[in-house]
This record gives sequence, structure tokens and C-alpha cells, in this order.
Amino acid sequence: MIINKQHLETYDTRYRAQLINSLSGFKSANLIGTINEAGQTNLSIVSSVFHIGATPPLVGMIFRPHSVPRHTLENIFEMKTYTINQVSSQIYRGAHQTSARYDRAISEFAAAGLTEEYHDPIPAPFVKESRLKYSLDLREHQILSINDTELVIGEITNIIIDDDAIKQDGYVDIESLATIAVSGLDSYHVTKRISRLSYAKPDKAIENLDIDGHPK
Amino acid sequence: MIINKQHLETYDTRYRAQLINSLSGFKSANLIGTINEAGQTNLSIVSSVFHIGATPPLVGMIFRPHSVPRHTLENIFEMKTYTINQVSSQIYRGAHQTSARYDRAISEFAAAGLTEEYHDPIPAPFVKESRLKYSLDLREHQILSINDTELVIGEITNIIIDDDAIKQDGYVDIESLATIAVSGLDSYHVTKRISRLSYAKPDKAIENLDIDGHPK
Repeated sequence: MIINKQHLETYDTRYRAQLINSLSGFKSANLIGTINEAGQTNLSIVSSVFHIGATPPLVGMIFRPHSVPRHTLENIFEMKTYTINQVSSQIYRGAHQTSARYDRAISEFAAAGLTEEYHDPIPAPFVKESRLKYSLDLREHQILSINDTELVIGEITNIIIDDDAIKQDGYVDIESLATIAVSGLDSYHVTKRISRLSYAKPDKAIENLDIDGHPK
Repeated sequence: MIINKQHLETYDTRYRAQLINSLSGFKSANLIGTINEAGQTNLSIVSSVFHIGATPPLVGMIFRPHSVPRHTLENIFEMKTYTINQVSSQIYRGAHQTSARYDRAISEFAAAGLTEEYHDPIPAPFVKESRLKYSLDLREHQILSINDTELVIGEITNIIIDDDAIKQDGYVDIESLATIAVSGLDSYHVTKRISRLSYAKPDKAIENLDIDGHPK
């Protein structure tokens, strides 16, 4: 079927949100850990974390205006630092619970059954149960005028990771860490690797690579 | 282990690119279909498509400066319209092949073994073999000063989708379309749903939802 702009306008808000959120494809699932000057921590699940560049190592996130992770955003602006923690299949239910509208005074760590972990000198809390996590310094913030969403870009400062997940060529086997993928607003998925593929060249057939990046 | 900024600086470029590209989590896999005034088509795989908003329906993409999809970017600026086509496990190898540096005169459709499909009045080609695809009008373009990457935002105009993939509440079962997820630079994954979860509230336990969004 073909759905055009006129059709889209007739859909109710929730139906439309489910539909449009499904179109971009699979999304990452990450918990954003923050703290404010008063020492109040906050944790919120975000499916909008995306890679921006490796040199310098930059990661972006999109926040909807007035959305649930508002306390997270305020803490990032206040402290200029935060953590990103990959969500695994072991913790996805607790991670999802952090999307509830808790009062500012309540830390979502307890609500989610997750544990704060600290690494000097980073003030923001990591999630102990996450097996791939990193701290960032805030580098850029702008409001996209087109729909008032906020774009936050951070530079990675410290990465905490299970040693054996890093393969010979630097690739991280996030599937081995049970990292999950999200579709739409509320669907969580584990993955099964089909293959790694060789760097594509115009005059050469693609080869399958093993997990370390070597031709099979 | 902990990897800090000093460690990162000692890594060679490719190792570092593999590592940093793995940190954001699973990514979407999409083929961007474009055409220029002269009628030359172009197709390139992009793992940086992300949801920005549902009202209006907006989707963003990040392009590295001087990267392979440069012809794609030029075509988007020229025609102000393009298509996004989800990559399934049936076409992922051809999709990956589009990342090779082809001359401008060569359309990646043929190289990838994929077929152009047209829907009046949209000039840009869709990928016939893709089971969820949509056209967009260019709405915003900016260069992120932090690392010269280009942010392109489009508004969805027409969605072409298998009817039975849309569930009762508007959620699209992209897993049933064999849509794949990407990790790092070159790893492709199929998915298996753990569950859809109910909207989180502070004082209420999360419930599992069936595929149509009803409590199980």
C-alpha cells in the first residue's frame, strides 16, 4: 500500500507516532546517566543515540521538546558531562521503566533495579550492569528549528568494556554483550549476526569476514 | 578494561574507526535513492538514518565530509527529494556493495543487482526489492562545525509498505520484513523480538504487549 501525506494527517497522534517511529529501522538502546550539582542522579533510556565521528570520537542524541528525559538534559547542561550505557537483554525491562515520568527527586536507578557505578574523576554515574559504557563531555547543543528537538553532541572520554568483546581490528562484538536493538517505540530485539563483510570496491566481489575482520 | 583519551590517540585510524563505530549500539541499514537533473541515478547504503519527529514526519541522516555517498548528497541538493529504502537480509550484500567508490556515471543499482522503481510524481528511484520505503523532501541541511559532518533532514511524503506489516496500533513489524541491523562498520544482523512493552508509568509494573500492542 501507499500512504501519502494526506493519509498521515488523518491518523491519530499515537498511531502516527508508532508508524513514523518504525520507519527509520532498528535503533540503539542506551541509558543516559547524569547527576546534578546537588548530587541527585538521573537515568533515562534513549533510542536516539547515533555515531557522528571517530576522530574526535563524537556521539549525538536527539531529545524531543518537553519529553521525559528533560531532567537528563538539564543535568547535562549543568555538569557538562554524562555517561552512555548500552542496554542488554538482561536489563531491558528496567531500562524501559526509566521512561516513566518520575519526579525530579526520584532517581530512576532504584526504580529500574540498576546500580550506580562511579569512576574517578567522572561525576556522572555509570550503570554497573551495562557491559559497554562510556563517559562524554558535552561539546555542542542546538535546537533544531524545524521541530524544536534538541541535538546534543558529546566527545567520548573513557570507555569501560569487557576485554574479550574487542576483536583484533577494533570491532566490538556488541552481540556477544547481549546488546539489544529497538524498533518503533517499545519493541526490543536480540540479534543474530549474518556476517561481517569486506570493504567494498568497484571491481572486487565482497567477501565474508570472520569476527576478527579476516577473510573467511 | 578502561580505554581513555590517551589510549584512543595511540590507536591507528582504522582500529579506532571500528571501535568508535561500535559504541553507539545497533544502527539502521538504509539505501538512499537519488537522481540528478540529467537523469543519472545513484544508490548508497547509509547506517546513519535516525528518527527526528512524527509531526511533521522527519528523518535525519549524517554524512561524513568527502565520504562515498557524496554523489548522493549532491543529487539531494539538486533535486530536493530522495528515497529511503530499508535493507533486508535478502539484499544486504548488494546494499553493502553500493559503498564502493563508483564513478559518478555508474549507477549503483546495477552494481548491487537491485532494481529501480518509480512512483509518480516522485523523480527519485525507489528500490523495488525493499519492502519498506518512502520518499522525502529536503527540509534542512547544515554542516556540524565540530567535525564538518553534514546533517540532512527530510520530511516524509509517501510510504510504500507491505500492508500486513502494519499492526493495529500503527507499529510496523520490521522484523517480519527481514529488516536488518548494523553494528560497527561492516557487521549485519537479523533480529528476534524479545517483547513489546507497555508504556511505562511510575506506579505501575510493565506488561508484555503482543504484536498489535495489546497486553498479553
